[in-house]
Amino acid sequence: MFHPNEELMKKCIEIAKSSHEKNQYALGALIADERGNIITIKSSNLISSYDPTAHPEIVVIRKAAEMLKSRYLPSCYLYTTLEPCPMCTSAAIWAKMGGIVFGAYQEDAIEFSKNNPSDIFTWRQIKVHANEIIANGSPVINLFPGVLRDECINLFQHTLD
Amino acid sequence: MFHPNEELMKKCIEIAKSSHEKNQYALGALIADERGNIITIKSSNLISSYDPTAHPEIVVIRKAAEMLKSRYLPSCYLYTTLEPCPMCTSAAIWAKMGGIVFGAYQEDAIEFSKNNPSDIFTWRQIKVHANEIIANGSPVINLFPGVLRDECINLFQHTLD
Repeated sequence: MFHPNEELMKKCIEIAKSSHEKNQYALGALIADERGNIITIKSSNLISSYDPTAHPEIVVIRKAAEMLKSRYLPSCYLYTTLEPCPMCTSAAIWAKMGGIVFGAYQEDAIEFSKNNPSDIFTWRQIKVHANEIIANGSPVINLFPGVLRDECINLFQHTLD
Repeated sequence: MFHPNEELMKKCIEIAKSSHEKNQYALGALIADERGNIITIKSSNLISSYDPTAHPEIVVIRKAAEMLKSRYLPSCYLYTTLEPCPMCTSAAIWAKMGGIVFGAYQEDAIEFSKNNPSDIFTWRQIKVHANEIIANGSPVINLFPGVLRDECINLFQHTLD
């Protein structure tokens, strides 16, 4: 199988780095098809948005569904630099996606925020892991954790630069 | 405190009943402020939408945030006829909402779908409860389960009519 693929995670990291220029969380996500073609890619834009659901994962899932004119995306994979929260993981399940590939773990973001307190970039977490959501969902989609984890952890620092 | 309020849940039930005329899940959600004024109300439109995230709860949260021009909705309450899934519960947490009020439990929908199998209205569930998501979130928002539960369970039947 094509996925998980480090080159696609590198694309996410690249676009995440651009977030900090816009004073956003340094996070990125993309949707690729089963052959690895990128359908849509997005860095975080949460800070300047009124939409509390505008995590990059939700933005790319909605965009891909719109582009493919389908509520279900079984041949698509979600790549994201940080373990998706229960909202984003659930969205991938509702879309019956092929799978989720993520870089840094939730704990990595929690650790970072402890060491780098900020009123704006709080890195709030809902402490329920993606694998727990997936194990209790239908269909049980594929999960590939920790792909280029160190590079994705290093990204967090960009939020402060 | 004004919430939870049965009159508001009745409004949700009323609009949910209108869903079936449009061949949709008979579900409804609204956002009200702390004095009970309805900011936005919506029945399910999932079946005719390409957006896998378009649960009525997500639709009203996004709409309220847009209307109030704020990513955070601390004085707002989400009412929904069915226990919100992890996606919708998490969205309310990210929005720092005042609380969530729901009618039927997840188990009620699972029981109904067992007795009424359908290829279109599958009532898929992610079996993680709203209270578990909330207990692990920040802030820990208020949750009022089972308000007009029987009336909300009776709604499910409308999906088949």
